[in-house]
Amino acid sequence: MAEKIEVKQSAQAANNQVAAENRVFFKEKGLVVLNLVSSPGSGKTSLLEKMANHYGKGLAVITGDIQMTFDADRVRKAGSQAAQIETHGTCHLTAAMVQSKFGELDLKGVRLLVIENIGNLVCPSTYDLGENLKVALLSVTEGDEKPMKYPALFLRAGAVVFTKMDLLPHVDFDVARAKEDCLKLNPQVKFFSTSCKTGTGLAEWFDFLQGLQPNS
Amino acid sequence: MAEKIEVKQSAQAANNQVAAENRVFFKEKGLVVLNLVSSPGSGKTSLLEKMANHYGKGLAVITGDIQMTFDADRVRKAGSQAAQIETHGTCHLTAAMVQSKFGELDLKGVRLLVIENIGNLVCPSTYDLGENLKVALLSVTEGDEKPMKYPALFLRAGAVVFTKMDLLPHVDFDVARAKEDCLKLNPQVKFFSTSCKTGTGLAEWFDFLQGLQPNS
Repeated sequence: MAEKIEVKQSAQAANNQVAAENRVFFKEKGLVVLNLVSSPGSGKTSLLEKMANHYGKGLAVITGDIQMTFDADRVRKAGSQAAQIETHGTCHLTAAMVQSKFGELDLKGVRLLVIENIGNLVCPSTYDLGENLKVALLSVTEGDEKPMKYPALFLRAGAVVFTKMDLLPHVDFDVARAKEDCLKLNPQVKFFSTSCKTGTGLAEWFDFLQGLQPNS
Repeated sequence: MAEKIEVKQSAQAANNQVAAENRVFFKEKGLVVLNLVSSPGSGKTSLLEKMANHYGKGLAVITGDIQMTFDADRVRKAGSQAAQIETHGTCHLTAAMVQSKFGELDLKGVRLLVIENIGNLVCPSTYDLGENLKVALLSVTEGDEKPMKYPALFLRAGAVVFTKMDLLPHVDFDVARAKEDCLKLNPQVKFFSTSCKTGTGLAEWFDFLQGLQPNS
């Protein structure tokens, strides 16, 4: 067990070093960088499609998946460039995986880079990728107790995007309770209530992103 | 990297040994044991509540969570005994974690033991807990491409339970496509289409469980 913890700590330390390099790179390029984390199926790629429709060539996406390239294909079809990481079994992205994709992106004219992490509320939470902001997505079909169950993520998320709000009438999800629990973990967190089906809340989300500044 | 893979392989080998011990224990006790794996919020605990209502003292549950004991409380309230594992950050259960809970359960009269794994489609897939059957839950709100995206789980799952079928009219989820992809990965897989809200499909699920035999 002690050996396992040591290996994990040394993996984290090595990751932090690469994340710091990524941060320098992002700053040089004047990029605002988001790290999107959620359960599988909470709607990360649907939100990215809407963002690609809106930002077009001003947005670039690095999508992470265990395998398959569905997500990158969807983003490209919606109008933005995308590079795909296939982790082949690893349950989170690392800063080095992200760095390995820089050469595939043409960053001229790009202001916003979104890294779509592996669908998982646990492992991606503690790996810094060099982002400006960690964003947690939580679909209203998943249950309002998720912030308390996965505090490692919700402690670190600067923004929480509730998704699939169109399904709210059909499920038992107390938005006020979820917000309250998020605020206990991070009093500075910003909330967005969205539906990619109806378009609800997307304008507020885009406004928020517009106001974010690259690291100085 | 090589060091990391070696550590992972040795962790798996150690786990397999404990899983074999668990299997002997389960056989001695005449138990049918399920390992329930799904995304966070796909409805594992809701299904367990229905099973607890149905089986009462004939069912025991070991629930896994990163932290918090909500799930065990819900199962107990619904009529069955439950022991809770809090993994404090680990993203999957191990055979040893499960074994550490045997002392907390009174297995007299219990025929079915369900181990509710951590909500995660990646890490729990490859850790044997000594179960008879791995069961994957997939809610129709999550997207029908999940079997192809998470083959490590759907290769190993002997049963796939589609959940939240009451929401099917409100989402784009092609049940036929999901089934087809599951069958490509495991031609022997059994399917169940359920809703804990309406009760759809629960009788078929209970019938199936009734027909399962302890390891011989």
